[in-house]
Amino acid sequence: MTAYDAFFSHAAGEMQESAIRRMGTILAKNRDIISFAPGYPAVETFPWAEFQAIAHELLSGSDGSVLQYGPTRGYRPLLEVIAGIMERRAVSSSLDRLLVTTGSQQALDLVARVLLDPGDVILVELPTYTGAITAFRNVQARMVGVPQEDDGIDLAALESIHARLVGEGRRVRVLYLVPNFQNPTGLLIGRDKRLELLAWAAARNLLIVEDDPYRELYFEDSATEADVRPMKADDVEGRVVYLSSFSKTLAPGFRVAWIDAPAPIAAKLEIAKQAADLCTGGFDQRLVYEAARRGILDRQLPLLRAHYQERRDVMVEALRKELGQSLTWPAPRGGFFLWAKLPDPLDAHRLLDRAVRHGVVFVAGEAFFVNGEGRNLMRLCFSAPSHDRIREGVSRLAAAVREEIAQLTPSTPAPQPAR
Amino acid sequence: MTAYDAFFSHAAGEMQESAIRRMGTILAKNRDIISFAPGYPAVETFPWAEFQAIAHELLSGSDGSVLQYGPTRGYRPLLEVIAGIMERRAVSSSLDRLLVTTGSQQALDLVARVLLDPGDVILVELPTYTGAITAFRNVQARMVGVPQEDDGIDLAALESIHARLVGEGRRVRVLYLVPNFQNPTGLLIGRDKRLELLAWAAARNLLIVEDDPYRELYFEDSATEADVRPMKADDVEGRVVYLSSFSKTLAPGFRVAWIDAPAPIAAKLEIAKQAADLCTGGFDQRLVYEAARRGILDRQLPLLRAHYQERRDVMVEALRKELGQSLTWPAPRGGFFLWAKLPDPLDAHRLLDRAVRHGVVFVAGEAFFVNGEGRNLMRLCFSAPSHDRIREGVSRLAAAVREEIAQLTPSTPAPQPAR
Repeated sequence: MTAYDAFFSHAAGEMQESAIRRMGTILAKNRDIISFAPGYPAVETFPWAEFQAIAHELLSGSDGSVLQYGPTRGYRPLLEVIAGIMERRAVSSSLDRLLVTTGSQQALDLVARVLLDPGDVILVELPTYTGAITAFRNVQARMVGVPQEDDGIDLAALESIHARLVGEGRRVRVLYLVPNFQNPTGLLIGRDKRLELLAWAAARNLLIVEDDPYRELYFEDSATEADVRPMKADDVEGRVVYLSSFSKTLAPGFRVAWIDAPAPIAAKLEIAKQAADLCTGGFDQRLVYEAARRGILDRQLPLLRAHYQERRDVMVEALRKELGQSLTWPAPRGGFFLWAKLPDPLDAHRLLDRAVRHGVVFVAGEAFFVNGEGRNLMRLCFSAPSHDRIREGVSRLAAAVREEIAQLTPSTPAPQPAR
Repeated sequence: MTAYDAFFSHAAGEMQESAIRRMGTILAKNRDIISFAPGYPAVETFPWAEFQAIAHELLSGSDGSVLQYGPTRGYRPLLEVIAGIMERRAVSSSLDRLLVTTGSQQALDLVARVLLDPGDVILVELPTYTGAITAFRNVQARMVGVPQEDDGIDLAALESIHARLVGEGRRVRVLYLVPNFQNPTGLLIGRDKRLELLAWAAARNLLIVEDDPYRELYFEDSATEADVRPMKADDVEGRVVYLSSFSKTLAPGFRVAWIDAPAPIAAKLEIAKQAADLCTGGFDQRLVYEAARRGILDRQLPLLRAHYQERRDVMVEALRKELGQSLTWPAPRGGFFLWAKLPDPLDAHRLLDRAVRHGVVFVAGEAFFVNGEGRNLMRLCFSAPSHDRIREGVSRLAAAVREEIAQLTPSTPAPQPAR
């Protein structure tokens, strides 16, 4: 028998399975569980009939290139559509800055590989997106977290953490931010703070990676286009590498996203992508392109905003009713997530074990922290389940919370964590 | 203006654009050029009508998971189909060993990241596949080439190169091979040599990465199933990481390929893939799955063998007629490529410059060598152009070769290379 440990790279030694992906595997096996875990869009919102018509035309065989290898940068007409989307986001882009990626996860991976060496520091929000954590970890970067305020990352903390790291002789070149409806907190970075962050990055000579998958999904009762203006729109120095995606606005099954980066960085990302997967799926790119060209994407956006806002309402109402005394959370103004805080001394991992037995799951907060915090936090995703399933899931969750609290009352000895 | 060079990782500093991908970009701009360059399958062989029918059913909306995120390992029924394909290749696989990848290029990338640290040696054939070279280079591995004989890699050279490297204190853990219809040479590793290689890897404690995209495309006039038996089929020690793909048998536009690796390695590859792109496109996987389930894949294989064999015949006949005095090549027994040797002192790069002016392109041999050799070699891909275009392309190539030879006769002073 071959002993494989000796064959793994150092990077492989440090790789850790994503808590959210692992959850997806559990869920695939048990369909009765109500899932507030993975950030899945609602499949019933997808424009199925339109996709069907587009696929039929594309597969007529009249254009063989639909199923052929394509350019690494992406399908040219799709890149032009993306330039138009960027324009509507107040960003004046150009083809030498754009790259289609196989989902935003690939964008994070490529950015990590092109910008980070093992041991380099990347500054991230506390908490931050788990997919970014895994991408940065896989290049053996050292992630250092910066706390957030109600309007996003804490600038004073950012400055003092940066100063400390530089004082220690660390190379700190990149700041990763999710300014709109952050995963997992749902927070927005305030408008003024976005400009201050750009100025700070210029003063300290950093690049900003702006990850923006949720910006179209603002809730019209509490956010506007102005609130979700990308930092990239005010990036006069070319310090922002901007990531966005069609996964939340059309469908994640196509794996089509993009990067808008300064041209020299985009050129490096393209070369990195050549070795990573040659090109993003050509058929997927055509489907997305046609959906955009035919106005289907534009028609979807207001529907999606209303749809997810309603689900947020249902979850918030159910939580207030069932757990209003125990949980607190910042009001989600867009996106997919509600970030709930458990009362002391509840532990989200322990609660999750109990919740699984009640038939409901979420993601325990620790997965989003690069510094081990978050034990009393949980991410509840309201995007995928139906209204009834949201209500039922919150009831199940409430039962688990009540049991957990009862277990912790002084009259009953607390059991040891099962993990 | 921001100076970007200071922001790039060491890996990014070493990244080089693939000669073949660059060629693809040139070709996209000039449709009149006849291309023997990229290894593109023939789009007219694709089962368009069947794909159309499958897509129509999949997009009915009755199964929302078709366009949802999916498990990183791959769509379970597709993994089962792949296990069946492996069985027919004499490999008894299992689901814990299989992973769907976003094309074989991603498989190479994941394997490189999980098995190679910067500075580690990976042994490769001279010449070898450019996509593997870029993947290994991007993890900053050091590639060391081993010459090939008519029946594949030279075992004596392999042993002496390995001994030298180990003597130098290098870590040498992986050997990369393309045993069937190698890209670019078209060579097969002989049956006995495959077993000898497995024994050698066991004796020297190496893993073998067996890259096998072309095995179904053997030409029935000169190769059999027995000739293309995977090394993985005789891998009793679990030393072979096997890669294959649907890109050459169904269509590359779907980006669906797979890895069969020892379970502990497959588990690491899965984690690496989580960070690389979460999952391969769900719609693409379903299309491939349905094409296999409905017998379309099996029906395609004999058609493709005959189709590409015919194209090989057309190219060989045209080359014999037009360039039989100048070029030599090993007879392709399968796959997409003819590996041609120019007479001394012709240089393939110079010839390519001239060939472009004549309206035909190929890939200059140097791109496939990790040691700078190959200046008088060229890869001619016969898979994509029509018979007439193959003949016309060979005529154009012959004109370029004749001019190049005339330029080099003693009566005329040789011009300096234009590169």
